[in-house]
This record gives sequence, structure tokens and C-alpha cells, in this order.
Amino acid sequence: MKVVKFGGSSLASGRQVEKVYHIVASDPERRIVVVSAPGKRFSEDIKVTDLLIECAEKALRGEETAPLVNTIVGRYKSIAEELRMPMDVISRITDDLLSLIAGNKLNPAAFIEAMKASGEDNNAKLVAAAFRYKGLDAHYVSPRDAGLSVSNEPGNASVLPESYERLARLKEEPGIVVFPGFFGYNTDNEVITFSRSGSDITGSILANAVQAELYENFTDVDAVYAVNPHIVAHPKEIRELTYREMRELSYCGFSVFHDEALIPAFRAGIKVNVKNTNNPEAPGTLIMSTRKNTDGPVVGIASDDKFSSIYISKYMMNKEIGFGRKVLLILEDFGLSFEHIPSGIDDLTVIIRQNQIDTATEKKVIDRMMHDLDADEVRIEHDLALIMLVGEGMRQEVGTAARASKALAEAKINIEMINQGSSETSMMFGVKEAVEKKAVQALYREFFGRAE
Amino acid sequence: MKVVKFGGSSLASGRQVEKVYHIVASDPERRIVVVSAPGKRFSEDIKVTDLLIECAEKALRGEETAPLVNTIVGRYKSIAEELRMPMDVISRITDDLLSLIAGNKLNPAAFIEAMKASGEDNNAKLVAAAFRYKGLDAHYVSPRDAGLSVSNEPGNASVLPESYERLARLKEEPGIVVFPGFFGYNTDNEVITFSRSGSDITGSILANAVQAELYENFTDVDAVYAVNPHIVAHPKEIRELTYREMRELSYCGFSVFHDEALIPAFRAGIKVNVKNTNNPEAPGTLIMSTRKNTDGPVVGIASDDKFSSIYISKYMMNKEIGFGRKVLLILEDFGLSFEHIPSGIDDLTVIIRQNQIDTATEKKVIDRMMHDLDADEVRIEHDLALIMLVGEGMRQEVGTAARASKALAEAKINIEMINQGSSETSMMFGVKEAVEKKAVQALYREFFGRAE
Repeated sequence: MKVVKFGGSSLASGRQVEKVYHIVASDPERRIVVVSAPGKRFSEDIKVTDLLIECAEKALRGEETAPLVNTIVGRYKSIAEELRMPMDVISRITDDLLSLIAGNKLNPAAFIEAMKASGEDNNAKLVAAAFRYKGLDAHYVSPRDAGLSVSNEPGNASVLPESYERLARLKEEPGIVVFPGFFGYNTDNEVITFSRSGSDITGSILANAVQAELYENFTDVDAVYAVNPHIVAHPKEIRELTYREMRELSYCGFSVFHDEALIPAFRAGIKVNVKNTNNPEAPGTLIMSTRKNTDGPVVGIASDDKFSSIYISKYMMNKEIGFGRKVLLILEDFGLSFEHIPSGIDDLTVIIRQNQIDTATEKKVIDRMMHDLDADEVRIEHDLALIMLVGEGMRQEVGTAARASKALAEAKINIEMINQGSSETSMMFGVKEAVEKKAVQALYREFFGRAE
Repeated sequence: MKVVKFGGSSLASGRQVEKVYHIVASDPERRIVVVSAPGKRFSEDIKVTDLLIECAEKALRGEETAPLVNTIVGRYKSIAEELRMPMDVISRITDDLLSLIAGNKLNPAAFIEAMKASGEDNNAKLVAAAFRYKGLDAHYVSPRDAGLSVSNEPGNASVLPESYERLARLKEEPGIVVFPGFFGYNTDNEVITFSRSGSDITGSILANAVQAELYENFTDVDAVYAVNPHIVAHPKEIRELTYREMRELSYCGFSVFHDEALIPAFRAGIKVNVKNTNNPEAPGTLIMSTRKNTDGPVVGIASDDKFSSIYISKYMMNKEIGFGRKVLLILEDFGLSFEHIPSGIDDLTVIIRQNQIDTATEKKVIDRMMHDLDADEVRIEHDLALIMLVGEGMRQEVGTAARASKALAEAKINIEMINQGSSETSMMFGVKEAVEKKAVQALYREFFGRAE
């Protein structure tokens, strides 16, 4: 049995749903289908989820929602029309949406959650109807009926462990189950969503629960690429990745697969196949526990910008027990999470994501550090990019650091920071944002040769 | 005015004291002389300070001390005899020692402190007498009379700020002041010592107090070497070093100059000249605020062994605010200070000095981390060496990391850890202890060429 998840762009139009139908129909093992809400049909299009959030906010402000409801229903309707389906499912979706909008707004957060989640929920109903209309034995299953219970953290839910046993019963369902992604229910039976792109998480949870032989994650690229295609044109496709490698790549700018979504699949050892709805014959990228390291030490290069560094120096810092902890306590008091802490003898640098902190808070952090730590100097620098070389083969091969730093030196790029030594699958370089692309390109050439 | 400090080996015999006399007599600016206790005359010899500690411990246990007292007094006596000096100063030293031993032992720590410090104190009296005998206008000054007040931390004292104004009056003393290193007095007028080799600290404090034009630190090597001569034969001598470079080198195995001792000189911007008593014509090494970077990016390579790494991994660690602080809190609860914290996305490694922790404590630390952090894995690895490339020129020059890691790769050395990015004057590599020497040799060849 395979669990198959389709992303928003795979379900944005009737033509796309037709492709999805063929993919599911072509393999009798594809028994559980997880769907996102309809995504963008073209780059300026608006995702249904975003329309729903806007609609919910209007409703909360007591504004007119009818035009937006029309637009939203129109999106489902156009899919149904393209497929020449009977329109009864559209009436059902319209009724659902109208009754949601008319519903209880005493808790605005809960109201928005329910509205957001309806995008996936109604799309699951539509896709199930489309499959049936085209001759497949498919039916919609509600996360509530299936027992997908989650923690009460709107927009950031975690699955509750007891859900798995209940969800395992999906194996016994006849025909094909069409299941909405992105949300579950709290113990009060209220809708609670996962973080954005959370349909990946739902698919992974179901794959774990039914012990699927494979979790197929259909999106709109042929594979996970070895580097961001906006930085290097036509980069190499990655055929095989370990869970760890995927996790390290997603941390630093690879958004192909939601990083939290790997956990349930990883725990159950279920392979994840990232594939392209628009080119289902392509093998895609297979994510699994171990892979053969035949491709050199580096499997992918990720990079991300907008990091800041807080530099703290104090003579004889090194001899002060508790100094590092005091630094981290101050960060915590300001709600800042840190990424890395390179250190010298008398200095320490904390790398944080820039979006966590504004100029006023920066000043407060500096003052607090100067005062509480009795530091000699505290200064913040912005616009740092982190580049991560990822690959399980890295630790066995002497000289990866040498190749990487040589490639950067030859490109005349100053390395602000190197962090290597904890992870066995990655090595990190910090550079100024202005040279990020150039640095990534230089590293790509070194480890993958010229792009095609 | 120059402050001149002589180490133990420079004062171990009459022949050595003779050299010291000539050095002081040759420059009328050498007005304040700080002395250590007599050190080793040959490699199996015992330092007077060690004899004094043994003697103090015997006295505390009520054991016979006469033979040891004889040995100790014998050391001073043999110096006086070699110089054919009158013996009255030896009687004074003997009386002082006997009255110390007969003194109050209610506070054993205070008793040991006073005994230890007598090594420097009595040697200062002897050296002053020797200088006078040879025709110099020299006299002993007691740290008590001069007002060198220190914090009440036996074996780890810090100078109290109010001392400086009092010590400044040493400028007004006629002739040459001979001042014992290594100790001061707490506010109860008890002897309190600095950390071991603390005579360097005394010299630096006096140089600051009198605003000396130079602080000369005489020892038994011609200069600070660019690398440990036990690892690379006949290494390059360093002519100029900044305070920061010296501090970074001393941290990691360079014991030529006590690292705390730099602080007072550094604060007053007084240059420190490390010179050789046995070859005073050699220019030695000059330590100062800034230097011209004409010698390439690296000025010295230090290394030290016996580090352990504690590896902690936990899936999604990265998203847990406060994780790092909790790790450091646990270390602090066990009294462990850390050196570096390289980090990955889901893992963190803490590098500590191995001598802080025994096997039983290691187990406790692991259990506590597994439990309190809910970690997926915690493991400790031993026998790591840290190698530090030091040089102010490093940050201006692109490619230092590349040269270093290439040199290590060509020597087939696996880099366990790279820490670069906080200090602007150093770059650190972690390797297994077994390959430490080989790694240092490879780096030396890269940055300094073949040894002569």
C-alpha cells in the first residue's frame, strides 16, 4: 500500500486533477490519497488557502464576503466544469463554506483555523467525487472520523501519539481513501492546522500509521535538485537522499519538502519519493535511511540569507564558567533562537535569523549583554548568508573542507565563518549575502562540475 | 624605566644570577626587577617552590621537616657560595623559613600559601644582596610595604584596583628595586598567591603601575617560537606579536608567557619583550598592540591535546528555544567549562578539556542530558587535539582556510572539527590526538616552509 500526497499546484485545475487521476489509477497500491487545497494555476494566481484567510478576516470584521465566497467556490467549480462532472459536489462545498462563515466567531483564531482548513477538506470531497465520476472506487474520509487528533497549537499542531492506532484502520477501508491534508482535531473537536505546507505532514503521518511501503509526495518538480535552480541553471537532480540529508537541506532554503513532515516517515523507516505530477514517469528523488555513497562526498548545496551575528568579546572569557549559558539566557529572554555559536578564546559569536529582531531590540540586547556579561565589546553584523554542503559521504572522505575552501578562495570569497564538526552530514560556511550566489556557484562547480 | 622579570631557570644558580646581574647592570633603565624562586638547574632538579610545598605539607602532618629545610636553604646557600657573597643574607632566609614553619597552622591553606610565597620572597632578598655585593644600588621591597593588595583567592589571586596607585610610588624609590613575584596580600594582611608561574603577573602589574616604557620578561628561550620545538625542530622565531596573538597562542599549549599576565600590560599598552637570560643579545619577541603584517597570515601554530567532545543529537533540536542553554546549564552543574560548541541542525557538540571529567562523571552527564534534554543520542569521544592557527593577518587574506585544510588533506589527516568565525586572529582545527604532531607539521610546512 502506498500513501500518495498531491500538492496545491497538482490540483489547481481540472487538467491537473486529470493527471492526478491517471497517476492514482495506474497503480492499485496507491490506496490513500492526501490532497492540498487548489494552488496557483499561473504565477500571479492566488492560492485557495490565501483566499480563505482573507475571507475569514473579512467575516470577522463584519465585512461583505459574498464576492470572495464566489471566487473560492468558483475555483472548485472550474475544476468540476473542466472535468464535466456533475455539480452536486459543488453545492455541498458551497453549503459547507456558507455555514462555516455563518458560524461561531467568539474565538476568532478557531474561526480562521476552520476556514483555512476547509480548503483541503472541500478539495478532498471534490477529488473523491472526480475519481468516482471517472470510475475509481474512491471516497472522502474526514480527519475527524479517522481520528487524527492533534495538539492544541493553531497553525503549529503536532499529531497526538494515540492517533496512529486509529489511523491504522484506514488500511481496512475499501477502495481509495481521499484524505484532506493540513489539519486535525483537538480534544474539543475543533479544527487545528499544522504549519504552512502541512499537507506533507498529514501524508507522512498516514504513511506511518498504515505502515505504507512508500510515501509518494507529488509536486511540480522532477526531483530535489542539488542546488537552488535560481542560483545554478539546470542543476543536477538528486536520485537518492537520506532523511538526514533532506533535513539538513530543507533547513537551509530547500523548500521542496516540509522538514517536520519527514519525522513520522523517518520514525517508521518509510521511504519518501518526491515526484512530479506533470512528469510522473521521472524517477524523482527517493528519501530513505541509508544510501550508497557513490556520487562523491556532497549530495546537495543549500543556502539561506538574512542571518545576523552577535559578536561578544571579553578578555579571559574562556576561564569564566557559565559565560556561554548567560549569553544564551539573554537570547532566550528576548525570545531569540540561535543557529550557531562559533567561538574563539576571548570571544563568542551567536548567529541568529535576522527576522527575529528589530533595531530597537538589537539595542536592548547589546545593552543587556554589555551590562550582564561585563563584556568588553558587543556588536551586531547583518546580512550574512549560510551555505551548507550536505552529504553522508563527507566524513569518510578526507579533503572535503579543503576542496570547498579552495573553491571559495579561488572565487575570491572571504569566509566569515566555518562550522564543521558536529553534524556528520554537513559543513557550513558563512559569507556576506552579497557574495552568496557567487559562493554557491563556486561550490557547485567544485563538487558537481559545470552545469549543463 | 623598564620592569624586568626573571624566571626560575634564570635564577637557579650563582652562574645564572651572575648573568642576571650583568643584564640589569647593563641598562640604567632596568629599575624594577621581579624575581621568581630558584628553578631547575638541570632537568631532574626540583624547583624550590615544589620543595616548599612538600615541606609545608610535612609540617601540617607534624612530620620532620629539618632535612627539607636544609635542602631548601642549601639552594639559596649554593647561589651565595658560587657568588662568594657574605652569608648574612642566608641566616636571614633561614630564620624566616624556620619562623614560618613554626607559625600558625590553624588555617592550613593560609600556611601553605605563606610557605610557597617564601620562595620568591627570600630569593628577592638574596638577589638584592647579590646585586649590592656586586656594586649595584639595589634593595628588596616587600609586596606588603609596596601595597600589592589582591583578592582573597589562594592560588588564583587577582590584583585589587587600588593597588596600582600605591605601586606607582615604586618609581620614586632610589636605586634598583628587587621585588618578589607570585604573591600579594589580602585585606587581612595574609599572603595570597597568583596562579602558578604568577611572577609574570607581578611584573606586568608593576609595569602598568609605574607606566614602564617596557616590560622585559627574561626566560630561557631566545624567543617565542612559531610552533612547539618538540614538534618541529628549529622552528622560526617570532619577532613581533600582538597581545591578542600571544593570548591565543598561550591558550593552546604555548607556555612561554602566562596568559593572565598580559592583562595589566595590555591595559596600559606597555610592550612586553620576551628575552633569553642566557642570550641577552638576541632581540627576543616583542608583544604589543599592533604590528605590521608582513610575514604572511599566520604568525604561530599552537596545539594542545586531551580534549573530549560530547555529541548531543535530537531531531528538530533547532526549533527548540532554550536547548543550548539547557546543555550549558548541565555542564555548569557539573562544574565543567566548555571550549567550543560546533553545531549542526539537529546536533550540537561540546568540546571540553578531558582533565575535568572522570568516567563516573561522564556517565552522570550523559544520563542527565538524555533525561533533561530528551535527546536522541548523547555520546562522549576522547583524545581530541585542537590546533590553532594564529595571526592578525588572517582575516584580510582570502584563502587561509583553504591553505590549511589542503595541507591537512594532503597529509591524509581527517579534520574532526573546524571553528572559524568569531576570533579575527585565529582559526581552529580539531583532529585526533594520534595525528596531532603530523597535522601541526603539515601546517607548519604550509605556512612557514620546511624547518631549517
